[in-house]
Amino acid sequence: MKPIFLLNGPNLNLLGQRQPEIYGRETLADVEALCTRLAQSLGHELRCHQSNHEGALVDLIQEARVEGSAIIINPGAYSHTSVAILDALNAFDGPVIEVHISNIHKRETFRHHSFVSSRADGVIAGCGTQGYIMALHRLAHLLSAK
Amino acid sequence: MKPIFLLNGPNLNLLGQRQPEIYGRETLADVEALCTRLAQSLGHELRCHQSNHEGALVDLIQEARVEGSAIIINPGAYSHTSVAILDALNAFDGPVIEVHISNIHKRETFRHHSFVSSRADGVIAGCGTQGYIMALHRLAHLLSAK
Amino acid sequence: MKPIFLLNGPNLNLLGQRQPEIYGRETLADVEALCTRLAQSLGHELRCHQSNHEGALVDLIQEARVEGSAIIINPGAYSHTSVAILDALNAFDGPVIEVHISNIHKRETFRHHSFVSSRADGVIAGCGTQGYIMALHRLAHLLSAK
Amino acid sequence: MKPIFLLNGPNLNLLGQRQPEIYGRETLADVEALCTRLAQSLGHELRCHQSNHEGALVDLIQEARVEGSAIIINPGAYSHTSVAILDALNAFDGPVIEVHISNIHKRETFRHHSFVSSRADGVIAGCGTQGYIMALHRLAHLLSAK
Amino acid sequence: MKPIFLLNGPNLNLLGQRQPEIYGRETLADVEALCTRLAQSLGHELRCHQSNHEGALVDLIQEARVEGSAIIINPGAYSHTSVAILDALNAFDGPVIEVHISNIHKRETFRHHSFVSSRADGVIAGCGTQGYIMALHRLAHLLSAK
Amino acid sequence: MKPIFLLNGPNLNLLGQRQPEIYGRETLADVEALCTRLAQSLGHELRCHQSNHEGALVDLIQEARVEGSAIIINPGAYSHTSVAILDALNAFDGPVIEVHISNIHKRETFRHHSFVSSRADGVIAGCGTQGYIMALHRLAHLLSAK
Amino acid sequence: MKPIFLLNGPNLNLLGQRQPEIYGRETLADVEALCTRLAQSLGHELRCHQSNHEGALVDLIQEARVEGSAIIINPGAYSHTSVAILDALNAFDGPVIEVHISNIHKRETFRHHSFVSSRADGVIAGCGTQGYIMALHRLAHLLSAK
Amino acid sequence: MKPIFLLNGPNLNLLGQRQPEIYGRETLADVEALCTRLAQSLGHELRCHQSNHEGALVDLIQEARVEGSAIIINPGAYSHTSVAILDALNAFDGPVIEVHISNIHKRETFRHHSFVSSRADGVIAGCGTQGYIMALHRLAHLLSAK
Amino acid sequence: MKPIFLLNGPNLNLLGQRQPEIYGRETLADVEALCTRLAQSLGHELRCHQSNHEGALVDLIQEARVEGSAIIINPGAYSHTSVAILDALNAFDGPVIEVHISNIHKRETFRHHSFVSSRADGVIAGCGTQGYIMALHRLAHLLSAK
Amino acid sequence: MKPIFLLNGPNLNLLGQRQPEIYGRETLADVEALCTRLAQSLGHELRCHQSNHEGALVDLIQEARVEGSAIIINPGAYSHTSVAILDALNAFDGPVIEVHISNIHKRETFRHHSFVSSRADGVIAGCGTQGYIMALHRLAHLLSAK
Amino acid sequence: MKPIFLLNGPNLNLLGQRQPEIYGRETLADVEALCTRLAQSLGHELRCHQSNHEGALVDLIQEARVEGSAIIINPGAYSHTSVAILDALNAFDGPVIEVHISNIHKRETFRHHSFVSSRADGVIAGCGTQGYIMALHRLAHLLSAK
Amino acid sequence: MKPIFLLNGPNLNLLGQRQPEIYGRETLADVEALCTRLAQSLGHELRCHQSNHEGALVDLIQEARVEGSAIIINPGAYSHTSVAILDALNAFDGPVIEVHISNIHKRETFRHHSFVSSRADGVIAGCGTQGYIMALHRLAHLLSAK
Repeated sequence: MKPIFLLNGPNLNLLGQRQPEIYGRETLADVEALCTRLAQSLGHELRCHQSNHEGALVDLIQEARVEGSAIIINPGAYSHTSVAILDALNAFDGPVIEVHISNIHKRETFRHHSFVSSRADGVIAGCGTQGYIMALHRLAHLLSAK
Repeated sequence: MKPIFLLNGPNLNLLGQRQPEIYGRETLADVEALCTRLAQSLGHELRCHQSNHEGALVDLIQEARVEGSAIIINPGAYSHTSVAILDALNAFDGPVIEVHISNIHKRETFRHHSFVSSRADGVIAGCGTQGYIMALHRLAHLLSAK
Repeated sequence: MKPIFLLNGPNLNLLGQRQPEIYGRETLADVEALCTRLAQSLGHELRCHQSNHEGALVDLIQEARVEGSAIIINPGAYSHTSVAILDALNAFDGPVIEVHISNIHKRETFRHHSFVSSRADGVIAGCGTQGYIMALHRLAHLLSAK
Repeated sequence: MKPIFLLNGPNLNLLGQRQPEIYGRETLADVEALCTRLAQSLGHELRCHQSNHEGALVDLIQEARVEGSAIIINPGAYSHTSVAILDALNAFDGPVIEVHISNIHKRETFRHHSFVSSRADGVIAGCGTQGYIMALHRLAHLLSAK
Repeated sequence: MKPIFLLNGPNLNLLGQRQPEIYGRETLADVEALCTRLAQSLGHELRCHQSNHEGALVDLIQEARVEGSAIIINPGAYSHTSVAILDALNAFDGPVIEVHISNIHKRETFRHHSFVSSRADGVIAGCGTQGYIMALHRLAHLLSAK
Repeated sequence: MKPIFLLNGPNLNLLGQRQPEIYGRETLADVEALCTRLAQSLGHELRCHQSNHEGALVDLIQEARVEGSAIIINPGAYSHTSVAILDALNAFDGPVIEVHISNIHKRETFRHHSFVSSRADGVIAGCGTQGYIMALHRLAHLLSAK
Repeated sequence: MKPIFLLNGPNLNLLGQRQPEIYGRETLADVEALCTRLAQSLGHELRCHQSNHEGALVDLIQEARVEGSAIIINPGAYSHTSVAILDALNAFDGPVIEVHISNIHKRETFRHHSFVSSRADGVIAGCGTQGYIMALHRLAHLLSAK
Repeated sequence: MKPIFLLNGPNLNLLGQRQPEIYGRETLADVEALCTRLAQSLGHELRCHQSNHEGALVDLIQEARVEGSAIIINPGAYSHTSVAILDALNAFDGPVIEVHISNIHKRETFRHHSFVSSRADGVIAGCGTQGYIMALHRLAHLLSAK
Repeated sequence: MKPIFLLNGPNLNLLGQRQPEIYGRETLADVEALCTRLAQSLGHELRCHQSNHEGALVDLIQEARVEGSAIIINPGAYSHTSVAILDALNAFDGPVIEVHISNIHKRETFRHHSFVSSRADGVIAGCGTQGYIMALHRLAHLLSAK
Repeated sequence: MKPIFLLNGPNLNLLGQRQPEIYGRETLADVEALCTRLAQSLGHELRCHQSNHEGALVDLIQEARVEGSAIIINPGAYSHTSVAILDALNAFDGPVIEVHISNIHKRETFRHHSFVSSRADGVIAGCGTQGYIMALHRLAHLLSAK
Repeated sequence: MKPIFLLNGPNLNLLGQRQPEIYGRETLADVEALCTRLAQSLGHELRCHQSNHEGALVDLIQEARVEGSAIIINPGAYSHTSVAILDALNAFDGPVIEVHISNIHKRETFRHHSFVSSRADGVIAGCGTQGYIMALHRLAHLLSAK
Repeated sequence: MKPIFLLNGPNLNLLGQRQPEIYGRETLADVEALCTRLAQSLGHELRCHQSNHEGALVDLIQEARVEGSAIIINPGAYSHTSVAILDALNAFDGPVIEVHISNIHKRETFRHHSFVSSRADGVIAGCGTQGYIMALHRLAHLLSAK
């Protein structure tokens, strides 16, 4: 079985460093390690990447197109501005879950719309880093149902 | 410990009956039974209600204000039109998770905005009835963290 | 054959009492009686309800889902604000005709849009209470064509 | 008594030829013949015209201003773009019924608004060619009520 | 002389319980008692109702149509979403004063527009529960001026 | 010297016949006769046309392009909808005065914008049929200033 | 104790002279005299000014900043256009009540928004000149509550 | 007979000094002198004022209310921003002609809307300073028709 | 094989006469002759028409519906305003290429939207009269691919 | 050499008095004195004015037109509402620098747009009273570059 | 002579792989090879690049600024979101043709606007990969016309 | 003390090369050298970077987060489209000054809004490359005030 891709967008490498009262003290490495173990226990391999570059995220999604079974993506700020990431996801056949650590609907208006949401199968927002765990459970369910 | 309220809005009593290819074959009773068992295993009581009436949902949220620790709500169509439900939730102190079975961001434009999302702590959409399970896990985490 | 449902929304119980120069002097009871007789002559039973409650109208449409063959609905003010009624109608399989006694397109801008119109098979506005008669003829035609 | 004018706008001469699964197989000539007979049975003469030209429709409405008692008009695409037809109708004193064969509220957004609706006494949409029949009945009622 | 109706909408039954720093510590019962005494001193009977149900408020306004001389209404959240309440008030002949305890123009944008304001004779916002007292004085003046 | 063209758009042939309390009792023939005499006294020939057809107005403006020195145009309803007339005027080199008998800024919102105004040298509205006289005086001034 | 300022904006000097059927026959002098007496009976001095000049109103509010305890302001037309008056009020520390004699929400759309409302503590509209009386009572309450 | 008021708004005192290729070389004094002579020949007195102050223009319109028969106004920049001038004109009973020297519909979008146009009887734009002459002729006609 | 229709809308008969620095010096006759020869070399007959009348263009498209294999259309100004032409094209089954001589996206905002583009198979703008040549090549390719 | 004008709009006379934690403790007199000394050291005279009156600011800009070499303007609230000040600046030939003490782009949406910015050569916001110093340096550079 | 640049944006490297029923089975390499041969036959060298990175496309356009004679660009998703690419093209002096394989005007609304179109000389959409061929022919014409 | 970062976005590497009549003949290297010397004289080190890549700018801001005391940023085209750069700046604690060489408020509408402005402490536009000098002076002041 092909691995699940866990992709994080711009500034998510700062997780645990900025505004810990909001985002918690877990670093991105902590989250990736936790998710990798959970994925294994669910019978899946996890491939984790973070980039601040829109184009690099497009490259990664195209890689997942060939080598991945499903995608968990937190596109960060690119959620609101990137049609290129949407198009890359549109060319991907497997299930996609979009995760936002904070509840974007409580923030500035320009954060309420996500291009990715029009492609994602499921969207989870405001559940902290637990959102990644929930996404993994959802994908495990969807991949097993195939 | 006070029970968690699981509230479902208009037309969700039809779950399992309409468009099963989209919403699955589980009925609302099935979902409520499954969630009740999960809640118990997580150490919580679950109180389940469904209503087609906006005012009845306001009444139930006010009841939860006194008797509940947390709320899982799928406001259905009232997500998009009810300020009254938003106000009732604003008067509730505990955590609130909003669940939508389908991904509302893939549907008509008027379904993209939810008044409830501006109050909810977390929002889960497009994860089918598994969204309720995910919401319970999140609430268990939040209530234990208090 | 299942009955046709004739549903009237908020304030239509005042028919014949308010602004008779616009709405005429017929009461809702007159209209229901007239339609019932016409329905019978066309070989159909008619079941008539009026409610000021959005939730009650949703309940009635769900009832029609099981027990009715077609729906004539004048959603009154809920035309412009109720996604819940639209959703209930979306779960109904038979033909639906929407009736407005006055021509809503000549009134305030917020009355020009009806959520129900995006589901209705036919829409009749500004033909007075004769609109109900016309709707019945249309449904008789559609039901016979099945 | 002056005749009723039955005016059809652009592309309605194709009735019965394009998309018969939507518009049915009746041609415009069939509809005009049927309506003419019905009008006669109701004691009215019917004068039928179709044109693809906005200006020709304005001319015809001006003709009806002098020689007609009432107008049934399906302005087709000009519903959404013609202020000139609206103005011509504004200069006409008798009753006007606007007919659309399909339910324009289910189609593209730019078809939801009709300039003619702000002048028409009644509007009938989505009742197929039966809409013309209904319009005739309505006009017979209105003209007899004068 | 017919009584004045004092109608309060959704969540106003929580008055004195939620956000007392904003809304004060008076309960709705306190306010109703105070207003009843003032009304009597002004020579009027007061009939008080609160409901979380839009339809119930429509019912009450229709009742006031027959049995009431004037209406004081705080429609709460329904101010912003209910055309049905507006229509019911449109069918009421006496004077109507709309009251909001807080200044809705300082809150979220969706609270700035009230359907009821387009029908009300007077609008009072941001004067706390004293707004009800002011409304009663205004109605006493208007009813005596008839 | 080439003649001045006086062009009137749709429904202006009804001048003096419809709403005389607004538009006065002068017919279009009266206005054209009056203007012709005034033009002569100012040393100009006047060529008058009216059409309900947008395309015919385009044809006439193209004719003026070759044979006319200036244009007075009351585009009627086409003011608000015709880019074709704007384009024809854009291809005309002489001065253009736009006339509206009524003050279009006091009427429905869709009448406030005129495509022609973005090309016209001068715009006169709400001065009744005297507006044509004023336009002739203005053109006489502009043509003499060349 | 510092006086309360009663400020009236443009055209309110015409009170009692224009449209008395709407605004009543009381002049601004009558209103100011009545309010002065009421203020005295409530233990407050009242300082009254009217100006048609936006800048003069800003000057007066700045004067009230130093010498006044509270402001009653009917900004008239400047409600809808003046950020300068809003800023001046933002620099004033005491309570502010905004009064409109007519119900601005029933008039043209551009009168529905008031910059001042986003600063005012209370807003009273459509209660005629009685609105000033009501405002004084409210301020007496607020100033005594300090 | 009362005099006609000729009112010019902000920056029109610069006439003839700025951009003479657009506005011509006539000064405001030239225009006022020319208009005064024409008014006299038409049997009217003319009273001319210019101000850069919105409030001063309101004062002048109120003065015209008592002492004037009609108003010609070029509100300059206040056309687009002043509700106060509109209100002052609304309180004036005689005819009002609005003049703009340039064609405001060819300039920036924010210059296309004039509050004054919704009150003016006639509007003349883009006819240079001849627009004032035309306005005088129109007023002479309207005043003689009374 | 049926001929290809080459249809040109309003003002395109002026090609080569107006603004030759933009549109070039070729006349419409030159373009039609050139295209006819190219079509022949590609094995197709070309039928060329130009009209300033929206209705005439609808008539021609309906003619192409019966007698044509494909359409090249430059709808000129009607691109932006004509739903009737869109509807006529919707009733045509063959391929349609829309041509604009200039790049409409560099011009006024109202020229950026074309109703025809939502039906056309291909759109070519800003390639001068060479756009017609390109359209012919594209159609030759599409018709041969059938 | 003509002096530089330093113009401050409404409420800026309160500088140093209101919200010193935001605007600092310097008064407008302090700022003007500081800037005057700096201007002298740069070889320029400075003429300082503040007014709460839009018309007075227009008068001052017209004065600068004759007597000034450049303008530094902080239009305060009139930035967002005054076309008259924009027009006055448009008639001024020298360089103009617009200064805002706070960063207006971080405040309410209606403060994000400044009419003056479409005329100013440079715009400085959010640099406190140092913005005036920066503006002087910029003008010294621009005037020396002439 | 400098080479022509053929630039393709994000996800166009997937050409021939995704949705072949829409985009055909040709790969990007096929298209580039075909275009290179055609360019040579037209006397031009072609330099081909594809990137998923907005910044890389800016770099390439800057390279073309120095080393290229013309640009054919299919900006893919960046058409709709990239001002940076627009700015880079604005700094390029030669002719630019924008190509879209599909007709973007038939897709989601956010794809209807392209920043690049406001700079491009010509725009070709919906002509499949033949669009690149057409662009080359157009550039050959434009470069030879210099 | 940590260095100040001077960051320039896309196409600013072309400074001095494109449109020198607007942007001057100084190259980016000239500006960086001048600023470095000025920074040193003010007691600060300056670290200069330019990139056409949004992601690279995010990387650089994250680097400044650890190693810098303040940021001067000219985000170029990314001002208008990048939420990612805004988010990176939101995670930076020191002062930020945004510089635009030209006055963006005089250019196309889409350039009037900058995401960065909602985070920047100060914004300087239209002061040419002198804007960088002004920004350095401002930062020197802010850093010394800490």
